[in-house]
Amino acid sequence: MAEKLIGAAVFGQSGGPTSVINASAYGVIKTALDAPEITKVYGMAHGVAGLLKEELFDLDQEDVEELKYLLNTPSSELGSCRYKIREESELKRIHEVLVKYNIRYFFYNGGNDSMDTCTKINDYLIKVGYDCRVIGVPKTIDNDLYGTDHCPGFGSAAKYIATSVAEVHKDAYVYDTGAITIIEIMGRNAGWLTGASALAELSDAPPDLIYLPEMPFDLDKFLSEVEDVYKKKNKCLVTISEGAQYADGSFVSHAKTSTTDGFGHAQLGGTAATLANIVNKKLGVKVRGIELSLLQRCAAHLASQTDIDEAELAGKSAVEYAISGGTGKMVAFTREEENGKYKCGITYQPLSICANTEKKIPREWINDNGTYVTKEFIDYVLPLIQGENTRKLENGLPRFAKLKKIKV
Amino acid sequence: MAEKLIGAAVFGQSGGPTSVINASAYGVIKTALDAPEITKVYGMAHGVAGLLKEELFDLDQEDVEELKYLLNTPSSELGSCRYKIREESELKRIHEVLVKYNIRYFFYNGGNDSMDTCTKINDYLIKVGYDCRVIGVPKTIDNDLYGTDHCPGFGSAAKYIATSVAEVHKDAYVYDTGAITIIEIMGRNAGWLTGASALAELSDAPPDLIYLPEMPFDLDKFLSEVEDVYKKKNKCLVTISEGAQYADGSFVSHAKTSTTDGFGHAQLGGTAATLANIVNKKLGVKVRGIELSLLQRCAAHLASQTDIDEAELAGKSAVEYAISGGTGKMVAFTREEENGKYKCGITYQPLSICANTEKKIPREWINDNGTYVTKEFIDYVLPLIQGENTRKLENGLPRFAKLKKIKV
Repeated sequence: MAEKLIGAAVFGQSGGPTSVINASAYGVIKTALDAPEITKVYGMAHGVAGLLKEELFDLDQEDVEELKYLLNTPSSELGSCRYKIREESELKRIHEVLVKYNIRYFFYNGGNDSMDTCTKINDYLIKVGYDCRVIGVPKTIDNDLYGTDHCPGFGSAAKYIATSVAEVHKDAYVYDTGAITIIEIMGRNAGWLTGASALAELSDAPPDLIYLPEMPFDLDKFLSEVEDVYKKKNKCLVTISEGAQYADGSFVSHAKTSTTDGFGHAQLGGTAATLANIVNKKLGVKVRGIELSLLQRCAAHLASQTDIDEAELAGKSAVEYAISGGTGKMVAFTREEENGKYKCGITYQPLSICANTEKKIPREWINDNGTYVTKEFIDYVLPLIQGENTRKLENGLPRFAKLKKIKV
Repeated sequence: MAEKLIGAAVFGQSGGPTSVINASAYGVIKTALDAPEITKVYGMAHGVAGLLKEELFDLDQEDVEELKYLLNTPSSELGSCRYKIREESELKRIHEVLVKYNIRYFFYNGGNDSMDTCTKINDYLIKVGYDCRVIGVPKTIDNDLYGTDHCPGFGSAAKYIATSVAEVHKDAYVYDTGAITIIEIMGRNAGWLTGASALAELSDAPPDLIYLPEMPFDLDKFLSEVEDVYKKKNKCLVTISEGAQYADGSFVSHAKTSTTDGFGHAQLGGTAATLANIVNKKLGVKVRGIELSLLQRCAAHLASQTDIDEAELAGKSAVEYAISGGTGKMVAFTREEENGKYKCGITYQPLSICANTEKKIPREWINDNGTYVTKEFIDYVLPLIQGENTRKLENGLPRFAKLKKIKV
């Protein structure tokens, strides 16, 4: 049994938002507010970027009933950042702030890069001998975090994508004239989200072809595959990852802007538009490029209740584990069965193995031709999109959390 | 009382799909199948394009329980077309087909152009003395049909747009870095859908600026308005109609393809991308362009139940009115009040006044500066987006109608 550690907690959100990251926030904040070991709960304004500037919210002053609305509020309510710690001076500054507020519990909600941030902070605090429990809470629609069966945020994005692709399929097939539709889906290096478009087959409205970043993109092969489908059906519905790359590593898309995000990733987008143009020129047929864009990561109205529940559980587990002595770990999910049904289990993985390692779709879950996913893939995703979000509405529109966000 | 007319009915869908056009189909088909005066119910495959080719479905053979799924199936289940009747020979051909199948009831579901088609067919049938009752059923997400308070399809698209804009707002404001987001919304000449983005203010997440096609677009004014908001908030969320035009009538967008639809309308799109590029160059800030694209007209998962009910009612009313002797009319909605609450009434308008006349947002429902809508506009739209679609799901995904579609 670990020694009882009494002190304040701080919680931050980092990286791209999801539909359910605030459900994890609720799990962390509510559990921390209720824990006798935790004397005070702070929120970082815009993640570690705010922590460095000592921009903290006093979450003890929030109304508990209002906090519940976080379960159905998309995006990162405390503000997010894409901040990469590069200097030891930054770690020193974070240590100073933690000491100043007697923060002994550090919870950070994000993806690979955020787990890298957690690792650095944890290592530094150990080095300087400051007793603080550091726990990462997973988050990413991309589902590319290593060490967990799946990630909070993925199920809701997958549900949105499968539903939207099924609906677009109905639309794309409506005229008797020829038409090709190319839908671009998020996912830089891992194709989990693009693969999830295959679930539209359960609505009898699947894409005809799926192009994943796991497979090198070959333009001639692509054009010939699209043409084959088009010749048979007078239609073709394609889904493709924004991160699709040629064998030489260059992206299919034109970069939309010349800027890069804070971690040096090229900002992607434009894959569908680029290919729509090429296909139109080659086949002389009407081609529509559609980018699901931000909607796939913020469409809380179509969140999976399974995902919301699991995101909340991840946050709650982080706090409980830290109180029981856990540190230097990321909350992770395992896949269990109960009476033959999917059940989510909890485990904890060393932060260092989760940071900066990307989990891709196994080759055997992609068909031989590299143009669709297998039944194993669909069976993997399906439980994660179950359950309808029973969000509260006002005037037929979303009712988001209205936090006071009082700065300390 | 009109003479009783016994014969077959034919129903067709035309123009761009909506989330609820199939609810009108259900209203027409179910009412026609139940009517003793109607001996047989045919469906046109791809509207009048199919009728001309004698491609008809035998709707008497459909399962009634299965037909109910049409209430929650987006797009035009019988297939749509953008077919403009130009020659008398086409009208002659339609007459021949009607005679061959003893069709005495002609129901056509579409927007302005479809009402034009109805008018031509009705006029021709009167000219040749063929007794057939011709009724138009309104449909358009654009809400630009003249003679009706609002159009089936608009409420669901407005609900999708307001919800999505509110969600994107949460996402767009998440980082502490500057960001401008431009969302492009459908609507060629009328800004009803773009204006509906203002309803996101009921979720406390509205656009900062709204640009409607009713107001001539001035690039300098736009850039200065965006810059003003950006300077204050470090963010700016803009919604703009795909049909935004400069004072000289040229579109803000680059046409995406060189093709035009069957009616000679330029295919629009690219307004957001074009402006994102300009704003990025001018202000040197990250700008994201988002196109809601097809999703706004096919996202049945977020359809308004009010809209579904009214679309069904429009179809049902068309058949009942025709049986009672009505012809040459389009079903139209009136806005009534019952116990201080919104209620939809039904009236019938001459086809000819509905065809080819576009209803735009009144100037007094747009603010002086032309960058937002007034409370009157919001009060007009709000009742139309009420009620959650209680669609049936299978495996957490949409369960669409599976019709037999047996060709005659």
